[in-house]
Amino acid sequence: MTANKPITLHQDRYFSPNPEERKIARRLFQLVKDLPLVCPHGHVDPRLFAENQPFPDPTELLVIPDHYLFRMLYSQGIPMESLGVPRMDGGETEKDRRKIWQTVADHLYLFRATPTGAWLKHELHDVLGITKRFTGATAMEIYDQITETLARPENLPRALFERFNIEALSTTDAPTDTLEFHRQIRESGWNGRILPAFRPDNVTDFMYRNWRGNIDRLTEVSGIDCTNYHGFILALEKQRQFFKSMGATSTDHGVLTPFTVELTENEAARLFDKAIRGQATAEDATMFTGHVIMEMAGMSIEDGLTMQIHPGVFRNHNEVVFEKFGLDKGCDIPMATDYVKNMKPLLNRYGNDTRLNLIVFTIDETTYSRELAPLAGHYPAMKLGPAWWFHDSREGMLRYRQMTTETAGIYNTVGFNDDTRAFPSIPARHDVARRIDCRFLAGLVAEHVIDMDEAEEMIVDLAYNLAKKNYRL
Amino acid sequence: MTANKPITLHQDRYFSPNPEERKIARRLFQLVKDLPLVCPHGHVDPRLFAENQPFPDPTELLVIPDHYLFRMLYSQGIPMESLGVPRMDGGETEKDRRKIWQTVADHLYLFRATPTGAWLKHELHDVLGITKRFTGATAMEIYDQITETLARPENLPRALFERFNIEALSTTDAPTDTLEFHRQIRESGWNGRILPAFRPDNVTDFMYRNWRGNIDRLTEVSGIDCTNYHGFILALEKQRQFFKSMGATSTDHGVLTPFTVELTENEAARLFDKAIRGQATAEDATMFTGHVIMEMAGMSIEDGLTMQIHPGVFRNHNEVVFEKFGLDKGCDIPMATDYVKNMKPLLNRYGNDTRLNLIVFTIDETTYSRELAPLAGHYPAMKLGPAWWFHDSREGMLRYRQMTTETAGIYNTVGFNDDTRAFPSIPARHDVARRIDCRFLAGLVAEHVIDMDEAEEMIVDLAYNLAKKNYRL
Amino acid sequence: MTANKPITLHQDRYFSPNPEERKIARRLFQLVKDLPLVCPHGHVDPRLFAENQPFPDPTELLVIPDHYLFRMLYSQGIPMESLGVPRMDGGETEKDRRKIWQTVADHLYLFRATPTGAWLKHELHDVLGITKRFTGATAMEIYDQITETLARPENLPRALFERFNIEALSTTDAPTDTLEFHRQIRESGWNGRILPAFRPDNVTDFMYRNWRGNIDRLTEVSGIDCTNYHGFILALEKQRQFFKSMGATSTDHGVLTPFTVELTENEAARLFDKAIRGQATAEDATMFTGHVIMEMAGMSIEDGLTMQIHPGVFRNHNEVVFEKFGLDKGCDIPMATDYVKNMKPLLNRYGNDTRLNLIVFTIDETTYSRELAPLAGHYPAMKLGPAWWFHDSREGMLRYRQMTTETAGIYNTVGFNDDTRAFPSIPARHDVARRIDCRFLAGLVAEHVIDMDEAEEMIVDLAYNLAKKNYRL
Repeated sequence: MTANKPITLHQDRYFSPNPEERKIARRLFQLVKDLPLVCPHGHVDPRLFAENQPFPDPTELLVIPDHYLFRMLYSQGIPMESLGVPRMDGGETEKDRRKIWQTVADHLYLFRATPTGAWLKHELHDVLGITKRFTGATAMEIYDQITETLARPENLPRALFERFNIEALSTTDAPTDTLEFHRQIRESGWNGRILPAFRPDNVTDFMYRNWRGNIDRLTEVSGIDCTNYHGFILALEKQRQFFKSMGATSTDHGVLTPFTVELTENEAARLFDKAIRGQATAEDATMFTGHVIMEMAGMSIEDGLTMQIHPGVFRNHNEVVFEKFGLDKGCDIPMATDYVKNMKPLLNRYGNDTRLNLIVFTIDETTYSRELAPLAGHYPAMKLGPAWWFHDSREGMLRYRQMTTETAGIYNTVGFNDDTRAFPSIPARHDVARRIDCRFLAGLVAEHVIDMDEAEEMIVDLAYNLAKKNYRL
Repeated sequence: MTANKPITLHQDRYFSPNPEERKIARRLFQLVKDLPLVCPHGHVDPRLFAENQPFPDPTELLVIPDHYLFRMLYSQGIPMESLGVPRMDGGETEKDRRKIWQTVADHLYLFRATPTGAWLKHELHDVLGITKRFTGATAMEIYDQITETLARPENLPRALFERFNIEALSTTDAPTDTLEFHRQIRESGWNGRILPAFRPDNVTDFMYRNWRGNIDRLTEVSGIDCTNYHGFILALEKQRQFFKSMGATSTDHGVLTPFTVELTENEAARLFDKAIRGQATAEDATMFTGHVIMEMAGMSIEDGLTMQIHPGVFRNHNEVVFEKFGLDKGCDIPMATDYVKNMKPLLNRYGNDTRLNLIVFTIDETTYSRELAPLAGHYPAMKLGPAWWFHDSREGMLRYRQMTTETAGIYNTVGFNDDTRAFPSIPARHDVARRIDCRFLAGLVAEHVIDMDEAEEMIVDLAYNLAKKNYRL
Repeated sequence: MTANKPITLHQDRYFSPNPEERKIARRLFQLVKDLPLVCPHGHVDPRLFAENQPFPDPTELLVIPDHYLFRMLYSQGIPMESLGVPRMDGGETEKDRRKIWQTVADHLYLFRATPTGAWLKHELHDVLGITKRFTGATAMEIYDQITETLARPENLPRALFERFNIEALSTTDAPTDTLEFHRQIRESGWNGRILPAFRPDNVTDFMYRNWRGNIDRLTEVSGIDCTNYHGFILALEKQRQFFKSMGATSTDHGVLTPFTVELTENEAARLFDKAIRGQATAEDATMFTGHVIMEMAGMSIEDGLTMQIHPGVFRNHNEVVFEKFGLDKGCDIPMATDYVKNMKPLLNRYGNDTRLNLIVFTIDETTYSRELAPLAGHYPAMKLGPAWWFHDSREGMLRYRQMTTETAGIYNTVGFNDDTRAFPSIPARHDVARRIDCRFLAGLVAEHVIDMDEAEEMIVDLAYNLAKKNYRL
């Protein structure tokens, strides 16, 4: 069994074990390890910083909200109820936080060689000051230690934000959101930069849960009657302005496929009316979403918000789990995605416009070198989002660089996004990304593909400048 | 030209050439190199062990049954007839075993850097004691030496089984099989563990060669009238019980796609009746197979047999070769496969049931990180089969680990399967798999992703425990 | 900023940084670095060698015709007009060659770690003798130096051809081409081997620009009335003979997918007549092209021309750029391609015929190990083209070897093609290919997969013999 020995985060972790490459990677890492973290895309709850209350216990902090963590435990037969994941029907779930913590500790071996395992190790060690290895034997002791740690003022959310050296953190928000917490933060006098991002899926996709209710809510928050297409578009424009006034620099669009289509205003209005009457089909929803994406690109050209598209995930694949536990419970599964045909209308209409900054994410690695790098390596408006989700890991990020750089270069990519709802994991995630980029560049230097002075510029661009520039932060 | 120098199997073969990783890999390999071989999925003929006769000549042992070998030779224009592969029409083929052996030796350069080349080298050296390099010049001398070796009692099949240190070997058998050889082995008093596996494709797929005849044969062996759906299902259940009584721990399902669908009993019965009347269409066959896979999952929950699904291979792509030489002659070609949509019905119905042990194989590498690891990393019932067929090779197995581990961990995989009909290649195949896993883990240790004590546990799990556990051996 | 330091082409570039592998790679590279260049597939203009005029200025030589170069610059918002790319409407474009050269120099950082960057560096250093780093600061000085260099007799096209040590260079030519420049070269007494290749897309694809005009042109050059199917086929046969008489050893077929189909002569004639009447649909074009590919394979069996198929590229994806600047302006985008079903008719009819030499290119890497290597590792007629286009790069070529060799071996591949229209980049491209093959083989030697004497044979085969053999040069 894994001995009860101290946790160490080795200074050379994730670098190549080849001494020459390792030496170069170390030098490059020195240039970026202390740079501020730019977090232009994520899902941290702004309420954290508005209220600035102490984090509750370790289980609430690290286990219950982390679907990476309970997904893996569930895959090995551990019921989500026993991990305290709340049920939609309010049914029984484990309430004993210590017991849940113990269950995680007992199964920690499942996370060997996974990013979740690496992030957790980093959080325990660097954020929470745990120096013992987290095992079944040490679980309770560590639980107590973290509980004590969390109570201290230097571990309140705002203090951590500052300690993490975060320059800007974007949340992701519905267009119907009044951004109350963002407003509270601003008004509090605290100058941590927490920005909203405009994600209108809940009103642009007819098939979204409670679409009709969301439209009414949009009417309410915008003060514009959204039960007709014209009003709907005006309201979106108005809400974008509102988000922008609250600091937003980007929009975000989660779609099944990156399908785009150019409808006439009449066609779009007809589909919208059908949806208002409750008669829209799945096909109508697809067409309308494909059209609205185009409209959004047009608006981005006007108002300068960077536009993000996230396609290719089959959401809520496990209906049993979805019905019991709801959204984001680990059953979103990537699928094959075509960008070449789907994005042609959008790219043909707006892709040559240098005012548009369109960031396309991918979760289907097979498109990196085949479709995405060639598209981003041609269209002025298009950039590639980082290695996303199941790929925001050592191997995943390395493959991303290997498969996109030769065709698109690094300057058609946008640096790193942590894309997390787990606030304490942010430094860990940036640490992995920066180390992998150092590793990648060190390989290129050692193989005499680039010179050291080039690598020194590139690593700063990858770790810091590209994200700032592309998200206009 | 390749000099006539001795074969050596280097002790560090397949390990990283980086000294630090190599050193770690060596240490890990020490832990597993002498562990028994667990062979839960393969195609070795049980008759070998029932009869325990000496292997005939080297050509019959190593060339004629090995479609990996003659596939490559054929691809370079060497007629299969000249390699002694029997023709369906009984036409002329080369009978001179020495001449065939010489042809192989003369073209051995074609196998450089291929797994076939590596296995053959290992078999010659480690199993057959050949220390000269196999070349055109040494072919006849080696032929004679092997012939002599094969005649010795220590090289009879059962003796080799013991020398190979095989703990259990599963064959693959039709549901209509009476398992005569398995019975003979049991009754012989020899305690080598040779188990059947239940592969019902020949009765579940209406399009299978001689499906109607197979149904009659199923009626005969089960004693249940299988010309109606109800009887068919009862007979399958009965035959599963029979296989289980003969030691089976698993079923196996070869399908074009992993399509699954839930039909009502009436719908299924209607399709079955249509097939009995000889009127089933290809579409009917697809629907019925998709339904029977679901039924089989249900039965596995009842009787505890591990369920294997092997999709994604276009069988008998070369009709000219198929008509002349029949099945398994090297013209099965992998194709793109979707698991996300196809397996949703099955996974939604049974995937959350921890009693089911569903092993999904893949031959389309592009699905490793996109679909398979995310699915296996969520559904409790699903595990990933090993790098299969065209990928049971150094590079193939390494990519498998690199692309599945971060999302699914190693504990949602099931260790190694040799999946071979070539009995003497079994040690070679396990050797490659164990070495590649050592190499993979050594990299993780050297990059400070996992600790050495973790790697030491993981390598034993990968080489031995996971296969035993997941096949319930 | 990148310092103004000398360019160096490191002797070990692209080799593994692991000292053991590097040492082996060096030894292997010694065997091939001075071998003649075999260039069996490319797009260099034969007029260069017919006229043998000095290259004009550096911009004309290195920038304007290189769509790799201006594609990347365009993707970062630099208008193609400002790079001197000619407009279809004759509109204004930058005429000042020095200014264009400066723009490129100022943005050279975009090409870091890209093949374009590597080729350019090699061309400047090895072909043009530039020893200063190409930067914004040195741009004018280097411009002048190159201008002077180009004027010297030793840098005329024929002299460079000889200095590059090119053994044979194939162009790519329409079937309607009279091969005037090839003829001039022959008649000039210069014995550089410049060969045509027969690429009939402009008459076999009804949807090709000006198809009807091309048919008339085919009638004209062949002297056979091509307005009926029978005449069309006869003319193709005649033109193939003509090309062969001019030295051609291959045909080339650019297709959207590798779809093949066997039509009756009547069906084919009916489609052709429809097209002549201007009534062919896209579907008709697909069917006809799929049929003609089959006919071409049949002709290749007769006349011995090696047949190349290049599928999988969506041409002219950016209609705005296409309309403004025309073909080959960087907006061709690869797409997912199926070979298994599409090529079955052709492979079943002709794939077992050892007289056919069918080279299939791929640009969809996901098919390397899944489809292409298994097909090439079985069918005697089929070979794999090299890592093509977006993949003719360090990482791209390495992945190609890693994903094709285990299943197909190296002897079902055909060596390297530079596939370029940029004549001065030819040595750079072969240099990268040879180095990557050395690197790949060095890894295999260091990992004890192959022996050094095997690697020594293989590297010569990869760098020289395979291309000569498979293109029958």
